[in-house]
Amino acid sequence: MTIEYMGTNFCGYQIQPGQRSVQGELERVMKDVLKEEIKTFASGRTDAGVHALGQVVHFDTKKEWKPDRILASLNLYLPPDISVIKAEEVNENFDARFNSHSKTYGLRFYLSRYTRPHLVNRSNRVNDNVDVKLMGEACKYFVGSHDFKSFVARKSGKTDFVRTIYSAKIHKINDEEYEFEVSGNGFLYNMVRIMFGTLLLVGTKKIKPEDITKIIDGKNRNMAGKTEKPQGLYLKSVKY
Amino acid sequence: MTIEYMGTNFCGYQIQPGQRSVQGELERVMKDVLKEEIKTFASGRTDAGVHALGQVVHFDTKKEWKPDRILASLNLYLPPDISVIKAEEVNENFDARFNSHSKTYGLRFYLSRYTRPHLVNRSNRVNDNVDVKLMGEACKYFVGSHDFKSFVARKSGKTDFVRTIYSAKIHKINDEEYEFEVSGNGFLYNMVRIMFGTLLLVGTKKIKPEDITKIIDGKNRNMAGKTEKPQGLYLKSVKY
Repeated sequence: MTIEYMGTNFCGYQIQPGQRSVQGELERVMKDVLKEEIKTFASGRTDAGVHALGQVVHFDTKKEWKPDRILASLNLYLPPDISVIKAEEVNENFDARFNSHSKTYGLRFYLSRYTRPHLVNRSNRVNDNVDVKLMGEACKYFVGSHDFKSFVARKSGKTDFVRTIYSAKIHKINDEEYEFEVSGNGFLYNMVRIMFGTLLLVGTKKIKPEDITKIIDGKNRNMAGKTEKPQGLYLKSVKY
Repeated sequence: MTIEYMGTNFCGYQIQPGQRSVQGELERVMKDVLKEEIKTFASGRTDAGVHALGQVVHFDTKKEWKPDRILASLNLYLPPDISVIKAEEVNENFDARFNSHSKTYGLRFYLSRYTRPHLVNRSNRVNDNVDVKLMGEACKYFVGSHDFKSFVARKSGKTDFVRTIYSAKIHKINDEEYEFEVSGNGFLYNMVRIMFGTLLLVGTKKIKPEDITKIIDGKNRNMAGKTEKPQGLYLKSVKY
């Protein structure tokens, strides 16, 4: 299934005891509807506050319902901040996490001296003195296969930091907002948010676009920018 | 001042005892910042759940602060669902309500069989079998000076129902959403929402576009469509 959710009122994708998670709500409703204990497997977790327009999850069921019936039935009972937008049958070996070839994230932002109420919790405010054009130029230095150790949260348990970025750009998505859109074969913990925080160093002219390469080569979290807040981040799509 | 707000967590624009209103929050913060009891006058009220991108309010103050200082100071203390987006000095006779020449409202909607989480509380879901093109054609019958008695909530205390609609149209505002945009010299209570509910009768082929004229001529609320829900409605601008 492809699912959409607003992360604002969730502790994140993954089930956490005593907290409201996307996975928890989804599995609770699936159990009610399918009268069967269902375990879902997502393409990956998203953090608290992060949204998804195209998260993908797989699951096994004994029910022989058509995918459209599952979609319609779940949407009747899911809370307004989660919807199933596509359901399809896959072969037994399909794995939403391990079979994904690429993921695309979008981090939305707007330039303003003050909060825009209609963009709260869905787009990040950035001071209007940043040079977005320069940030856009810096994106190309992320593209390719690199060791992204400088761009991972310290608490990540990972040891392999090599990831391939297929594309990265900043584009205007409407009259008010820009989006940093990045596709890759996988992303480390907080990686997109740290990439964006580093682009902000470029936008405020603390570093030059080409310094991104030095920061990648340094393999040191301290060289990169701050972890950007999660509210403007969307998991846009996962490809298989 | 031109202000923006998301109406979701307000009882409406106007102060109501014991409830959270836009006016109440604004005047509370203005008193704190300007150290003076401030009474604001808006171009008009908006209902619970209705948003504003360009509501206009006027007020008197003894403070001789520059408008930009007032804007910046208020935005520091206003809650995230209200912002001042413009502040300017006006002459003593200016009245935000009585001097307005036209107002523009936008009612956003999307076609889908199920809720889209990222559009909840900001765009109204409409079943995907409606004919939006036909609804768009029907808009022209609203334009002009008419007695809009068929398009006012029964509990309205008004007796003069003549209003002039300068323009009315339905246009696509992005990949997912349409907007019913209507400008006029003034609007009756629930008028935009009833106009939209009536356009839905056209979109579902219960009536023909030209029947709008018959409904206007009938001067009878029962002939028009349902009052559309408020969540997708925005006061976009007020002109003076």
